[in-house]
Amino acid sequence: MSTTSKAANSDGKLLVLTPGMGAVATTFIAGVESVRKGLSKPIGSLTQMQTIRLGARSENRSPLIKDFLPLADLDDIVFGGWDVKPDNVYDACVHAQVLKSQDLDPIADFLKTIKPMSAAFEQKYVKKLDGPNVKKFETKKDLADQLREDIRKKKEETGATRAVMVWCGSTEVYQSPSECHMSIEAFEKGLENNDESIAPSQLYAYAAIKEGVPYANGAPNLSADFPALIQLAEKNGVPIAGKDFKTGQTLMKTILAPGFKTRMLGIRGWFSTNILGNRDGEVLDDPDSFKSKEVTKAGVLDTILQPDSYKDLYKDLYHKVRINYYPPRGDEKEGWDNIDIFGWLGYPMQIKVDFLCRDSILAAPIVLDLALFLDLASRQGKSGIQEWLSFYFKSPQVEDGHVQEHDIFIQHFRLKNTLRVMGGEEPVTHLSENYDSYK
Amino acid sequence: MSTTSKAANSDGKLLVLTPGMGAVATTFIAGVESVRKGLSKPIGSLTQMQTIRLGARSENRSPLIKDFLPLADLDDIVFGGWDVKPDNVYDACVHAQVLKSQDLDPIADFLKTIKPMSAAFEQKYVKKLDGPNVKKFETKKDLADQLREDIRKKKEETGATRAVMVWCGSTEVYQSPSECHMSIEAFEKGLENNDESIAPSQLYAYAAIKEGVPYANGAPNLSADFPALIQLAEKNGVPIAGKDFKTGQTLMKTILAPGFKTRMLGIRGWFSTNILGNRDGEVLDDPDSFKSKEVTKAGVLDTILQPDSYKDLYKDLYHKVRINYYPPRGDEKEGWDNIDIFGWLGYPMQIKVDFLCRDSILAAPIVLDLALFLDLASRQGKSGIQEWLSFYFKSPQVEDGHVQEHDIFIQHFRLKNTLRVMGGEEPVTHLSENYDSYK
Amino acid sequence: MSTTSKAANSDGKLLVLTPGMGAVATTFIAGVESVRKGLSKPIGSLTQMQTIRLGARSENRSPLIKDFLPLADLDDIVFGGWDVKPDNVYDACVHAQVLKSQDLDPIADFLKTIKPMSAAFEQKYVKKLDGPNVKKFETKKDLADQLREDIRKKKEETGATRAVMVWCGSTEVYQSPSECHMSIEAFEKGLENNDESIAPSQLYAYAAIKEGVPYANGAPNLSADFPALIQLAEKNGVPIAGKDFKTGQTLMKTILAPGFKTRMLGIRGWFSTNILGNRDGEVLDDPDSFKSKEVTKAGVLDTILQPDSYKDLYKDLYHKVRINYYPPRGDEKEGWDNIDIFGWLGYPMQIKVDFLCRDSILAAPIVLDLALFLDLASRQGKSGIQEWLSFYFKSPQVEDGHVQEHDIFIQHFRLKNTLRVMGGEEPVTHLSENYDSYK
Amino acid sequence: MSTTSKAANSDGKLLVLTPGMGAVATTFIAGVESVRKGLSKPIGSLTQMQTIRLGARSENRSPLIKDFLPLADLDDIVFGGWDVKPDNVYDACVHAQVLKSQDLDPIADFLKTIKPMSAAFEQKYVKKLDGPNVKKFETKKDLADQLREDIRKKKEETGATRAVMVWCGSTEVYQSPSECHMSIEAFEKGLENNDESIAPSQLYAYAAIKEGVPYANGAPNLSADFPALIQLAEKNGVPIAGKDFKTGQTLMKTILAPGFKTRMLGIRGWFSTNILGNRDGEVLDDPDSFKSKEVTKAGVLDTILQPDSYKDLYKDLYHKVRINYYPPRGDEKEGWDNIDIFGWLGYPMQIKVDFLCRDSILAAPIVLDLALFLDLASRQGKSGIQEWLSFYFKSPQVEDGHVQEHDIFIQHFRLKNTLRVMGGEEPVTHLSENYDSYK
Ligand SMILES: NC(=O)c1ccc[n+]([C@@H]2O[C@H](COP(=O)([O-])OP(=O)(O)OC[C@H]3O[C@@H](n4cnc5c(N)ncnc54)[C@H](O)[C@@H]3O)[C@@H](O)[C@H]2O)c1
Ligand SMILES: NC(=O)c1ccc[n+]([C@@H]2O[C@H](COP(=O)([O-])OP(=O)(O)OC[C@H]3O[C@@H](n4cnc5c(N)ncnc54)[C@H](O)[C@@H]3O)[C@@H](O)[C@H]2O)c1
Ligand SMILES: NC(=O)c1ccc[n+]([C@@H]2O[C@H](COP(=O)([O-])OP(=O)(O)OC[C@H]3O[C@@H](n4cnc5c(N)ncnc54)[C@H](O)[C@@H]3O)[C@@H](O)[C@H]2O)c1
Ligand SMILES: NC(=O)c1ccc[n+]([C@@H]2O[C@H](COP(=O)([O-])OP(=O)(O)OC[C@H]3O[C@@H](n4cnc5c(N)ncnc54)[C@H](O)[C@@H]3O)[C@@H](O)[C@H]2O)c1
Ligand code: NA
Ligand code: NA
Repeated sequence: MSTTSKAANSDGKLLVLTPGMGAVATTFIAGVESVRKGLSKPIGSLTQMQTIRLGARSENRSPLIKDFLPLADLDDIVFGGWDVKPDNVYDACVHAQVLKSQDLDPIADFLKTIKPMSAAFEQKYVKKLDGPNVKKFETKKDLADQLREDIRKKKEETGATRAVMVWCGSTEVYQSPSECHMSIEAFEKGLENNDESIAPSQLYAYAAIKEGVPYANGAPNLSADFPALIQLAEKNGVPIAGKDFKTGQTLMKTILAPGFKTRMLGIRGWFSTNILGNRDGEVLDDPDSFKSKEVTKAGVLDTILQPDSYKDLYKDLYHKVRINYYPPRGDEKEGWDNIDIFGWLGYPMQIKVDFLCRDSILAAPIVLDLALFLDLASRQGKSGIQEWLSFYFKSPQVEDGHVQEHDIFIQHFRLKNTLRVMGGEEPVTHLSENYDSYK
Repeated sequence: MSTTSKAANSDGKLLVLTPGMGAVATTFIAGVESVRKGLSKPIGSLTQMQTIRLGARSENRSPLIKDFLPLADLDDIVFGGWDVKPDNVYDACVHAQVLKSQDLDPIADFLKTIKPMSAAFEQKYVKKLDGPNVKKFETKKDLADQLREDIRKKKEETGATRAVMVWCGSTEVYQSPSECHMSIEAFEKGLENNDESIAPSQLYAYAAIKEGVPYANGAPNLSADFPALIQLAEKNGVPIAGKDFKTGQTLMKTILAPGFKTRMLGIRGWFSTNILGNRDGEVLDDPDSFKSKEVTKAGVLDTILQPDSYKDLYKDLYHKVRINYYPPRGDEKEGWDNIDIFGWLGYPMQIKVDFLCRDSILAAPIVLDLALFLDLASRQGKSGIQEWLSFYFKSPQVEDGHVQEHDIFIQHFRLKNTLRVMGGEEPVTHLSENYDSYK
Repeated sequence: MSTTSKAANSDGKLLVLTPGMGAVATTFIAGVESVRKGLSKPIGSLTQMQTIRLGARSENRSPLIKDFLPLADLDDIVFGGWDVKPDNVYDACVHAQVLKSQDLDPIADFLKTIKPMSAAFEQKYVKKLDGPNVKKFETKKDLADQLREDIRKKKEETGATRAVMVWCGSTEVYQSPSECHMSIEAFEKGLENNDESIAPSQLYAYAAIKEGVPYANGAPNLSADFPALIQLAEKNGVPIAGKDFKTGQTLMKTILAPGFKTRMLGIRGWFSTNILGNRDGEVLDDPDSFKSKEVTKAGVLDTILQPDSYKDLYKDLYHKVRINYYPPRGDEKEGWDNIDIFGWLGYPMQIKVDFLCRDSILAAPIVLDLALFLDLASRQGKSGIQEWLSFYFKSPQVEDGHVQEHDIFIQHFRLKNTLRVMGGEEPVTHLSENYDSYK
Repeated sequence: MSTTSKAANSDGKLLVLTPGMGAVATTFIAGVESVRKGLSKPIGSLTQMQTIRLGARSENRSPLIKDFLPLADLDDIVFGGWDVKPDNVYDACVHAQVLKSQDLDPIADFLKTIKPMSAAFEQKYVKKLDGPNVKKFETKKDLADQLREDIRKKKEETGATRAVMVWCGSTEVYQSPSECHMSIEAFEKGLENNDESIAPSQLYAYAAIKEGVPYANGAPNLSADFPALIQLAEKNGVPIAGKDFKTGQTLMKTILAPGFKTRMLGIRGWFSTNILGNRDGEVLDDPDSFKSKEVTKAGVLDTILQPDSYKDLYKDLYHKVRINYYPPRGDEKEGWDNIDIFGWLGYPMQIKVDFLCRDSILAAPIVLDLALFLDLASRQGKSGIQEWLSFYFKSPQVEDGHVQEHDIFIQHFRLKNTLRVMGGEEPVTHLSENYDSYK
C-alpha cells in the first residue's frame, strides 16, 4: 500500500479549538477521550472507521483512511475552547444531557480539567443566550487580539505544534454580507470602528486565520463566509470550510432526494417539521437566529433536483421546513417528513420519514473529521475554501461561481477521490468490470 | 453534441413481448400509449426523461439520454404477450385497479386490440393461480417450440424488425438450479423429458434466446438465471438481465443504506413489513412463491454494508422482512420500515419509513427502460448478462465470480458511464473542479 | 319498542340552510342526495346509522336512533344557502375536489338546481377571500333584514314547514366578545351603528334566531357565542349549538387523551402538526383567522386531563398545535401527532399518530346530524344552548358557569342518554350485570 | 366523604405472590419499593393515583380511590414468588433491562432479599424456556401440594394475614379446555393421573384457590379459565380474574375502536404488527405459545364494533395481527398499526399509529391494582369471576353466557361504578346538568 503522501508527518500534538463548548463540542471531546481509553467506538467518523478502495477492485487494496493518510492520531489531540458559560467540560456534558452518566463517569477527571476561556460575545447576536464568562473590550480589534493571544497561549500551554478551530457556538442572528465584509481592508477597518455587522463568530474566524489556524464553521451564520475572510485565508495559506453541520433531517433529505432523482420520480411537495428541546432549540426559537438556519436548509433540494432541467418532475415542488422548540424532547430531536412523490403517468405516492435522532451524537464525529482533514490539508499546503468537505455541511461554502453540491453521494465520492489524490493514488470511476468490452 | 454512436440505427418497429399481462405489463402498455397520445408523462423512465452529462461540467453538454443514444422511439413500439387469463389489455387494466377510468377511457379502443396469446403454464409452479388460456403440450420441448412460433408470428403480424421480452408473469415457486440447468445440452434434454425443474418462465426465456430476442426477468424466480441459458445467451449473442424489479421497500432500502454507510452510522436492526392486496400479493401468500421473493430481498443489505469490513458497524445487524397479504390495500402496497441505527459512542437512534406506494406505477417504467436498453445493447452487439442494468433489479444477475452491487447510486453511476461509453464519450469521475491543484 | 315520544310529528319538509356553500356544505348536500338515490351510505352519521340500547341489556331493544325518535326523514330535506361565490352546488363540488366525478355525475342535475343566495360579507372579516355574490347594504340592520327575508322566501319557495341553519362559512378573524355583544339591546343598537365587532356570521345567527330557526356554528368564530344571542335564543325559544366541527386531529385527541387518562398514564408533551391545502387551509393561512382556530384547539386537553387534580401526570404537559398550508394535499388534510407519555416510575414512551384524513368527509355527516337533532329539539320545545350536542364540536358552547366537556366518550354517553330521555326511556348506567349482588 | 365501607379493615400485611419473577413481576416489586421510599411515583396505577367522583358534580366530592376504599397500603405489602431461574429480584431486574441502574441502586439491598421459590415447571409447556430452580414430583397432585405448602410457609415467614396471587409466568402453549377441566372432580383426578392437559399455571391457580387466595392471570394461557377452577373459586369463596394484561397495541386498539364507533366511521382493515426483543418475545417465537397470545388478541375488535348490528361499517373488516421477535428492541416493544377507515359515502382514510412502548412499564401497575382490588373483593365477600376487572385484560374472563366487554371506556366506567357501589355510594350516569329539564 502506497503511503508516500506529500503531507508532512503528523508529529507533535494537534490542538482542537472550539468556540462554543455546548452539547456538540463537549460530546466530541468526551467521545475522543472515551475512544482513547478503549471504552467506546468512534462511530460516525470517516477518519477513524472508513476504508478507502485503491486501484482496481481486483487489487483488493482497501486500507482504513487513517492508515492511508498521515492524519493526526487521536492520542495526539489536545483540546481548548471558549464559552460564555464558565462550566468545565464535565459539567457542560451533564447539563447537555446527551451522554449517560455511565459513559461520563470513567472520564470525569479528564473532562473536569478542560475549562472554557472567556468568550468574545455580545447578546444582540444571540438573543436567547447570556453568561458571565465574557471578555471586556473597547474595540472589536481588541477582542480579536485577545482571541489571537488565547490561541498562542493555549498552544504553548498544551505543547501543541499545530491547531485547528471548529465553531461550535450558538447560531447567531441572520445577516447577509455588508460593506465591511467585502475586503480585508474594509473588515479590519470595521474591527476598529466596532462595525455592527461584525458578529463574534467572525472575530474567532479572523483570529484563527491570522494565526494560520484552519477554520471550520458548524453553524449557519456567516462567520468566515464572505470575501474578506476568504481572501485572507487564501493570502495566509489557511484552509477553511463551512457551513452548518449536516445532521438529522437535512442529512436524510440529501440521501433521499438523490435516490428519487436517479429513478426520475417526481416530487410535488416536501414538508419537514422538527421538534427539539435543547439549548440550541431554545436559541433557534428566536426568529432572527432561526432565519440563519432556515436559509441553509431551504436550498438543499433545488440544487440536487435541478428543477430547471427537470421541469415535469420538480419545478412545482412545494418545500416547507418548520422547526419547533419542544422541551420534552431535550437533545433527542425528532424530524418528521412527508414527501409527496409521483410516478408513471403522474400517479401520486407518499413517503413518511420519522427520524428519532440525537443531534449532538450525529454532529460530534463531524467535528473530529473536520479537524483532522483540515489539519492534513494545511500540512499539504492547501488554502482557502475546501469544497471537498461539502459532505459535512448543510450549506457548503464554495468558491465564487461554483455551484453548491448537496447530493451526499456525490459529495462522498468527491471526498474519497480527493483523499485518493492527496495520497498519490488514482481516482476511481465505478465503471463495471466489463468496461473494457465497450471500448 | 456527439451522436455518432456505434449503434445501428433504430429503424423499424420494436416488438415488446411480456409473458404475463397482469398489473405491471398492462400499466406499462397503457402508459406508453397514453404518453404517445400526449395525455401523460413517462415519469420514472430514464430512457424518456433523464439527461446525461457529457464531458466536463464546464462544457455544459447534458442531452436527454434518448437524444444521445439511438433508442427505439415510443412511436415505434408494438406490443404482444401471453397470459393464462384471456382478458384483453383494457379488461386486465380495469381488473388490476391501478389506473383510473379517466386515464383508461381515452385509450380504451387501442388497449382492447391487444389480446394475450395462450400461455405456457402449469399450476404447480404458481399455486394460487389458474386460468383457461393455456397451451396444450406433450413435452416441454413442444411448449417451447410453440412459444418460438408465437414470437415469429407476432413479429410478422406487427411488422416489427426486432423484439425484446420482459417477464411480467407471476412469481413461481422457489427453486435452486438443478442438474438440468447446468448446460445447454442437459437443459434441452430436460425439455424433452419434461424435467420437473423446468418451470414455464424458463421456457419463455429459452424461446426468446433461441429467437435472438433479448430477455429480462422482472420476477424473482430463476427463469434465465442458470448456466444453461447464460451460455446459450452468450453463444447466440443475446443480451439478458434480471431479476426482480427493484421497487417499493427494496428501492428505499438501497437508497437509505448507502446513505448511512457514507456517514459510518452503525445499524443494529432493520425490520421491514409490507401490506399488499393485489393478485401478486395473493400469489405471494403461497409460502413457496414467497420463498423466491424472500431470497431476493434478503441479500440487499449485506452487499451494500460490507459487514466483514465494518464489523463494529454492521456485523450484528438483525434483518427481518415480512410480506403480508392484506386485501383492503389493493395495488397500493404499503411498506413500513423500522431502522435501529447507532452513532458516536454507540448511542442508538431510530428511523421509521412509511412508504405508501403503488407497485405497478413504480414497475411500469422499468419495463420500458429494460426493453429499450436491451434492444440497444443487442444492436451494439452485446451478449450475455448485462450487469450495468443492475440498477433495475432487486437481485441483479451477475457473471460467475462477480459480486452483486445493490447500492443504487453506484448502480446508477455505472449505468450512466456505460451509456457514455456506448455513445462514444468519456466516463465522468465527479472530481471537484479544483482537482488539478492536487496533481 | 316505545316510540311514543313527546316530539311533535316530523310532518312536512325541513329546510337546511347553510351560510357558506364550500367544501363541507356541498359535500353534505351531495351526500344526502346520493343516499336518497340509494347510491351510497351515510357513513359517519349517528342519526342515520347508529342504534340505541333501551332498557337492560337483557331486553335486547336496540333500535336505530332514527326509528326511535321522530327525526326528519332524508326525503323531506330541502336545501338553501348563501355564498360569496356564485357557483351552483355542482360547480362548487367540482371545485372542492372532495368527491369523485363518478359519484357526482349521477346527481349532477339535482346539484345544479341549488344556487347560493347573495352573501352578507365584508372582506375584513376573512382576509384571504373575495367574491362577487354579495349583498349591498347601508347598515348591518339592513343586512340582517335581508337575510331574514331570504329565509322566509326560501321556506316558501321550497314549501318547507321548518328550517335549521348550520354555519359552513369560512373562519372569520379572531374576536373576543365586546361591549355590543353583552345584551340584546346593545347588539341591536350595534346593528344600526354598523359596529365593527359584528361580523357577518353574527348576522346570520341573529336572522335565524329572530326567525325561530335553530342555529349551529361549524366554525370557530364567535357567531352565536355571546350573551346577546344566547339570551335571544332563550327568549325566542330557539335551540342553538356550537362551535367548530370536531374532525381530524382534534377528534383523535379527544379519543386518545381519555384513554391515557383511564389508565393514569402521564403525558409530558403533545405536539400536533397539520398539513392541508384546501380553501379552508388558505383562509387559515391568515394569522387572524388562524387565531380563531388555535383557541378552539388549545383547550381540549386541559379539560379532559384535569391537570389540577392530576398534577403528577398532567400539570407539566407541553402542548403545541401547528397548522400549515400545504397545497399539494388539497382537501386530504394530514395530521401528525407526537405524544410523549410516561408510565410506572416515570419511564417515557412515545406514540406517533399519522391521520391521513379527508376534512369534508368527516364534517359532512355532522352537518346532517346537527340539522336533524336541532330540529327535533326545537319541536320538543328546547331552547338556548344544547350542551348535549358537545359531541360534535371542538369547542362546545356551554352555559355560563358550566365546564366544557371534551372527552368524546362522555360526550357520546350524554348524547345517547339525552336521546333516551327525549324518547321517554330511562338513561343507562353500564353497571355490570352482577351489579345487584353489590347492593 | 363517606368511608363507611362494608369491607373489613385492611389491617395486617398482604402477601403478593407472583409465579414467574421475570420482567413484569420484578418491575412491579421494584416499583412498589421505589414508591415506598419516596423515589418515584406509581404512574399507571388507579389504586394509587386515580380519583373517583361521588354524587353529583356539584357536590365536588372526588377523593382518591385509595382514600375512599379500604385498600391495603403499599407499606403493608410483602412479596413472594416462584421462578425456574434462581436469580434474586435484583439480578432478575438487571437481566430484564427494564429499569435503569440509577433507579435500581437505591433499592438493591431490598431486592436482593427476595428470592424465588422453586417452580412447578415442565418444559413441554414453554418450549423456549429452561432453568434449574424446579420442583421434583411424582404426580401433579404432589406438585400442587408443594405449592400450597409454599403459600402457607411464605405467609408465616412474612407475617402476612392475607395473600393474593398474580400469574406473571411465561405464556404456555395453546390449549383449549379438555375433559379433565370440566369439573372439580375430573380435575382432581387429573392431578393424580398426571393428565397431560394440566399445565403448571393451572397448578398455581388450583393451589391458590384451595388456600383461599384470590388469583389473577396475566398471561393468555388457560390457568384458571375453565369450569373446574371457576366452580372451585365459587365454592371456596375466592375471587378470580383474567386473562392477559392489556398493554401496548391492544390497549391502543380498545381506545381507538370505540372512538371510531361513536362516530359511525367504518373500518375496512386493521393491520397490527409488533416487534419485541425480550424473553417474553423469545417465548412467543414458539408457534404454540404464540397461538395462546393470538387468540386473546383476535377477538378484541369484534365485540367492540358489533359487526352484526353494523354490517355496513364493520362486517368486512380484515383484521391481522403479527408478532415478530426482534432482539434489537429488548423490552421496548414497538407496535405499528395501519387502520383503513371510511366515512361519508364510503370515502377511505388511513390512520397509522406507532407506539414506542415499554411492555413491563405498562404491565407493572396492573399487577399492583389487581392485587389490591382482589384483596378488597375478597374481604367484601366476593367470589368467582370478577368481571368488573375486565379493564385490565386483553381477554376478560366472564361468566358463562356473558359477553366479553373490550371497550376500555365501558370497562372503566363499570370498574368505577362498581367501586362506588362497593363504597356505599350511588353509581353515576354522566347525564348533562340540564337533565332535569327533560323529565
Ligand atoms: N447538533 C447538531 O446536530 C447540529 C447540526 C448543525 C449545526 N449545529 C450547530 O452547532 C452549534 C452548536 O450546537 P450545540 O447543540 O452544541 O448548541 P449549544 O447551545 O449546546 O452550545 C452552543 C454553545 O456556544 C456558546 N456560545 C455562544 N456564543 C458564543 C460565543 N460568541 N463565544 C463562545 N461561546 C459561545 C453557548 O454558550 C453554548 O454553550 C449551533 O450553532 C448549532 O446550530 C448543530
Ligand atoms: N409491481 C411491482 O412493483 C413488482 C416489483 C418486483 C417484481 N414484480 C413481479 O412482477 C410480476 C408481475 O407483477 P404483477 O403485479 O403484474 O402481477 P399480476 O399477478 O397482476 O400479473 C401476473 C400475470 O402473470 C400471469 N401469468 C402467470 N404465469 C404465467 C405464465 N406461465 N404464462 C403467462 N402468464 C402467466 C398471471 O395470470 C397474471 O395475469 C410478479 O412476478 C411480481 O412479483 C412486481
Ligand atoms: N372540514 C372540516 O373538517 C371542518 C372542521 C371544523 C371546522 N370547519 C369549518 O367549516 C367551515 C367550512 O369549511 P370548508 O372546508 O367548507 O371551507 P370552504 O372554504 O370550502 O367553504 C367556506 C365557504 O364559505 C363562504 N363564505 C365565507 N364567508 C361567507 C359569508 N359571510 N357568507 C356566505 N358565504 C361565506 C366561502 O366563499 C366558501 O365558499 C370553515 O370555517 C372551517 O374552518 C371545517
Ligand atoms: N409485559 C406486558 O406488557 C405483558 C402484557 C400481557 C401479558 N404479559 C404476560 O406476562 C407474562 C410475564 O411477562 P414478562 O415480560 O415478565 O416475561 P418474562 O419472560 O420476563 O418472565 C416470565 C418468567 O416466568 C418464569 N416462568 C415460566 N414458567 C414458570 C413456571 N411454571 N413457574 C415459575 N416461573 C415460571 C420464567 O422463568 C420467567 O422468568 C408473560 O406471559 C407475558 O406474555 C405481559
Ligand atoms: Na410543524
Ligand atoms: Na409484520
